Amino acid sequence: MAKVAVIMGSDSDFDVVKKCIDMLKKFDVEIDVRVISAHRNPRELAIFAQTAEEKGYEVIIAAAGKAAHLPGVIAGSTPLPVIGIPIKTSLEGGMDSLFSIVQMPTGIPVATVAVNGAANAAILAVQILSVKYPELREAIKAYKQELDEEVKTKNARVQALLNEE
Amino acid sequence: MAKVAVIMGSDSDFDVVKKCIDMLKKFDVEIDVRVISAHRNPRELAIFAQTAEEKGYEVIIAAAGKAAHLPGVIAGSTPLPVIGIPIKTSLEGGMDSLFSIVQMPTGIPVATVAVNGAANAAILAVQILSVKYPELREAIKAYKQELDEEVKTKNARVQALLNEE
Amino acid sequence: MAKVAVIMGSDSDFDVVKKCIDMLKKFDVEIDVRVISAHRNPRELAIFAQTAEEKGYEVIIAAAGKAAHLPGVIAGSTPLPVIGIPIKTSLEGGMDSLFSIVQMPTGIPVATVAVNGAANAAILAVQILSVKYPELREAIKAYKQELDEEVKTKNARVQALLNEE
Amino acid sequence: MAKVAVIMGSDSDFDVVKKCIDMLKKFDVEIDVRVISAHRNPRELAIFAQTAEEKGYEVIIAAAGKAAHLPGVIAGSTPLPVIGIPIKTSLEGGMDSLFSIVQMPTGIPVATVAVNGAANAAILAVQILSVKYPELREAIKAYKQELDEEVKTKNARVQALLNEE
Amino acid sequence: MAKVAVIMGSDSDFDVVKKCIDMLKKFDVEIDVRVISAHRNPRELAIFAQTAEEKGYEVIIAAAGKAAHLPGVIAGSTPLPVIGIPIKTSLEGGMDSLFSIVQMPTGIPVATVAVNGAANAAILAVQILSVKYPELREAIKAYKQELDEEVKTKNARVQALLNEE
Amino acid sequence: MAKVAVIMGSDSDFDVVKKCIDMLKKFDVEIDVRVISAHRNPRELAIFAQTAEEKGYEVIIAAAGKAAHLPGVIAGSTPLPVIGIPIKTSLEGGMDSLFSIVQMPTGIPVATVAVNGAANAAILAVQILSVKYPELREAIKAYKQELDEEVKTKNARVQALLNEE
Amino acid sequence: MAKVAVIMGSDSDFDVVKKCIDMLKKFDVEIDVRVISAHRNPRELAIFAQTAEEKGYEVIIAAAGKAAHLPGVIAGSTPLPVIGIPIKTSLEGGMDSLFSIVQMPTGIPVATVAVNGAANAAILAVQILSVKYPELREAIKAYKQELDEEVKTKNARVQALLNEE
Amino acid sequence: MAKVAVIMGSDSDFDVVKKCIDMLKKFDVEIDVRVISAHRNPRELAIFAQTAEEKGYEVIIAAAGKAAHLPGVIAGSTPLPVIGIPIKTSLEGGMDSLFSIVQMPTGIPVATVAVNGAANAAILAVQILSVKYPELREAIKAYKQELDEEVKTKNARVQALLNEE
Repeated sequence: MAKVAVIMGSDSDFDVVKKCIDMLKKFDVEIDVRVISAHRNPRELAIFAQTAEEKGYEVIIAAAGKAAHLPGVIAGSTPLPVIGIPIKTSLEGGMDSLFSIVQMPTGIPVATVAVNGAANAAILAVQILSVKYPELREAIKAYKQELDEEVKTKNARVQALLNEE
Repeated sequence: MAKVAVIMGSDSDFDVVKKCIDMLKKFDVEIDVRVISAHRNPRELAIFAQTAEEKGYEVIIAAAGKAAHLPGVIAGSTPLPVIGIPIKTSLEGGMDSLFSIVQMPTGIPVATVAVNGAANAAILAVQILSVKYPELREAIKAYKQELDEEVKTKNARVQALLNEE
Repeated sequence: MAKVAVIMGSDSDFDVVKKCIDMLKKFDVEIDVRVISAHRNPRELAIFAQTAEEKGYEVIIAAAGKAAHLPGVIAGSTPLPVIGIPIKTSLEGGMDSLFSIVQMPTGIPVATVAVNGAANAAILAVQILSVKYPELREAIKAYKQELDEEVKTKNARVQALLNEE
Repeated sequence: MAKVAVIMGSDSDFDVVKKCIDMLKKFDVEIDVRVISAHRNPRELAIFAQTAEEKGYEVIIAAAGKAAHLPGVIAGSTPLPVIGIPIKTSLEGGMDSLFSIVQMPTGIPVATVAVNGAANAAILAVQILSVKYPELREAIKAYKQELDEEVKTKNARVQALLNEE
Repeated sequence: MAKVAVIMGSDSDFDVVKKCIDMLKKFDVEIDVRVISAHRNPRELAIFAQTAEEKGYEVIIAAAGKAAHLPGVIAGSTPLPVIGIPIKTSLEGGMDSLFSIVQMPTGIPVATVAVNGAANAAILAVQILSVKYPELREAIKAYKQELDEEVKTKNARVQALLNEE
Repeated sequence: MAKVAVIMGSDSDFDVVKKCIDMLKKFDVEIDVRVISAHRNPRELAIFAQTAEEKGYEVIIAAAGKAAHLPGVIAGSTPLPVIGIPIKTSLEGGMDSLFSIVQMPTGIPVATVAVNGAANAAILAVQILSVKYPELREAIKAYKQELDEEVKTKNARVQALLNEE
Repeated sequence: MAKVAVIMGSDSDFDVVKKCIDMLKKFDVEIDVRVISAHRNPRELAIFAQTAEEKGYEVIIAAAGKAAHLPGVIAGSTPLPVIGIPIKTSLEGGMDSLFSIVQMPTGIPVATVAVNGAANAAILAVQILSVKYPELREAIKAYKQELDEEVKTKNARVQALLNEE
Repeated sequence: MAKVAVIMGSDSDFDVVKKCIDMLKKFDVEIDVRVISAHRNPRELAIFAQTAEEKGYEVIIAAAGKAAHLPGVIAGSTPLPVIGIPIKTSLEGGMDSLFSIVQMPTGIPVATVAVNGAANAAILAVQILSVKYPELREAIKAYKQELDEEVKTKNARVQALLNEE
């Protein structure tokens, strides 16, 4: 079925990216995960991006921090939709990562999610794939139902907590 | 073929959103354009979002400024992928719009493009649709080729300019 | 007597919102507390907002973080005054929450308090209710007197501390 | 009927505050408008704030820019609800005004609206007054209906515009 | 000799303000320290500010955080020079405090030092007093000499550290 | 009488600094105005700062923009109080200038006024001088009276304007 | 002699970059100017960067705006020193460009100058080259002398202006 | 061989600067390290900067925080290339340091690296020196190869980690 590549710029991003991987697995999406740095492995990254389509990937997710060029550079060399995850940093909480990913010039968009929004990157990938795969559309609908229930359960817990007082 | 809904929160956003519309037309994507405000037409917006999938839309693009809730509110009521365009404002150049769109909570992503990045929202929509429609994949490739040529032409013009001096 | 609804977007906001609840109780205002997410429970939220007036609420307080749409979305579907509490986040200390709540478009205001200003949301609610309920006006006056005394006590303590040295 | 005081810190704020005045007049709210500076007329301001309640004001709206202390200083000396309008400046688009108004310490809230959100300050005042005055509640509902229609008209105009092309 | 008033808006600012007190003591400047809140003790603050000159204070130092109105409000009611210390907060590290203190309107300046710059507020006060008191001028010169030596000692220590390796 | 040096880092700052010069003249303070750049005339600046006290200056005002080192560098080489005017720039409205001037390290304060707050720098200088010169204290009091009247006149004008409608 | 490559990401950056070109010409540095986009011409950029050293360039200057990846991407594929010019944008005056250029990860620095600091990029390039070329060292010294004189002339003009009044 | 001076404004910057020292040692660059404060040791700093070239330094690296004038002040008095390291602070994560270093006026550039980017300052210095010293060019190439390998090893580790699950 659907194949998503999850790329991180540094293994220090792994703890955040793990939430993306787990969410994609929850939706039974086949994934390949790799650490490739835009600045330290430029040749390898170019090959990855140029061949991503023919290798059968349908969506690419890239996470990076600081001067976070990874998602944009990949987007420059592939026609596939690219999702960017800005990693939180100590500079205004990750504004450097966010600006480097979201402010792409005309022609080469990166679908940007929230700072450290790794789970959402996975969900967005599934939503994109669901344009083609009806079973993922149903899975997304079920997931939204789940979220709805989850908050209701939490609400019940808060009510209980307040009544106890 | 593919059907994209383009929603703007206010008709004052039209000049920016026009670039999105034009780009989608360039790719021969069928579009519906509407002005719906998240706060002024909440019932209409709910109906739009809840019925978007069954009406055959495959991607939704929403543009809004300031406390820009439109894309996120739509995303809450549809399983479709939603792309958000933060409209430039006078508060730090649109940081209010950007934050209100990109910082979505886990479960409900909005694929955010640059502030005023209306053309890129269209291209991202086409890239998403190209997961399903091979002819759009080819069109994106051709467009990227076009961009490449365009810059080369501009480079030649700058060379000429500098040689003239 | 007066009835205030206190809504939070996530149960993770509870520790902050607790200060609002406690302050409202201090003023003997009747309250209903609920967890409803703008994006995960959109239908439930719409019903809540559309029926809030007829249910007898006079003021609504809503707390939310990140792309904090909750107060604004509620304000779109009720004629009641809505107070928004921006929850602190790691993005510039909560600028995402603040912008998403305070920068509402013309027609649909949200009365915004400081980031994490939960106690102040309660006091503002009491001040609003005091327009109608004279006993709450007197309670506010007494509370302001209390604040005045409190600082004077603290001043005395600081004086003592300095004299000891 | 209801009486609202509209205070601005400088007559240079008048063009913005005018929208607040006009909106209050639209709702037939009785208003008093005054220019009082927190720093240049401290004694007059203290008298204004201390006597505002006994003079029959029910809500106070204060607009100020830069180190915008006016709303907060008034709030310190009156039990009435105080609405603050941060005036746009050249420092990050008015972040100085916004922070000086919204970030009030516990005990003394200011109900803050968007930067230059003068019309919304008026609407918020009407919503607050509507807690007591049923006719204003009806007026707010009618106004929200109006907003809803207005956007729909604008939508029709945009549709027409696009069809013409 | 010279008399400086040190005012803080809350006793929670004491740890920061302590550095100001200690520095003033180092220069043998006579000080009065008080906790007065701009918003909780407005009458007391007005009396303090209006009588500060006749009580013999020559400089006033005021520390406050968030919507930090204290220094500006004092400056509005005294002809004395007022020094403001913005207290660090969790909102962008204290940008709310800084903006509320430094961005004063024409006519009513506050001499602002760095966020949490309590020791510098003391030194600035001594420099101001040194315009009148020659012994303080000499003390400042000696202090600057001390600073110069101090860094040289630290440099020696770093050299030693590096040579040890 | 009192002697103030007004230094600007570039003649492009003159239009802003002019308001400082005019205000100082209004108070009959003797001034010397000079253009000296911290980075382009380092030797001249060092000589100026090191000899400022002996030349009889009592306060120094320095205006600079961007990486605005001028006031801080002067403060490093003189025991005199130094007032800094951050010049407005296109980077967040002058945040670069403000940070470079206000965030001085312990030991070397710069009394910072608002971005482009040139008139206030002059008034602060007069307030500082008034610690020594009673006639300037009286002049400041008169000026504050003037400001008070001025706003009252403006208030009258706004009242008239509103009544005309 | 020395050879510098000046690359801009878009021909819309030409007006800013022109100041860099002119300054390099003033120092008689041989230059090649090209428009290459990091995202639109990725293959051409890779070839440029990988062959820059062997083509005899000694320093590379790259200007880009928004998600300004150009300087960093070049730096990833060349051992040469790379200077980055962040182009001013409407997002906080160019904070997106600045962050994308300056916040490079460990191992791949970009020597960043001020937003729109094109002339300074040229001067920095000359300073770097002057490590090898003594004639450029002398030229830089002469230029600094020139700057010093220039400010003195401007100072004289300001003095004259003030005396005329 | 090559000689680099590494200056820090305070010994509290040592832990960050240590990474710069270690990296320079790794490249066998001869270094002198000193603590000199721009504001506390102005005379010593002037002498250092004015004599740096004749003492044989080829590049200067300067680290400083808050109103970080050190690199700019040095650059004003030497024709040598100056690299600036902005030290992280609690004000927006070091925006004060970054702005004070990068926003230099025309004529006096400082080659700025990332906030706390001490290792990169060293690498940039080596790249600059490599314009003259071919052995350093080779060393940089080898280092880049090392970085490339390092990420590949980390990638392998992440793959292993994921396969284990």
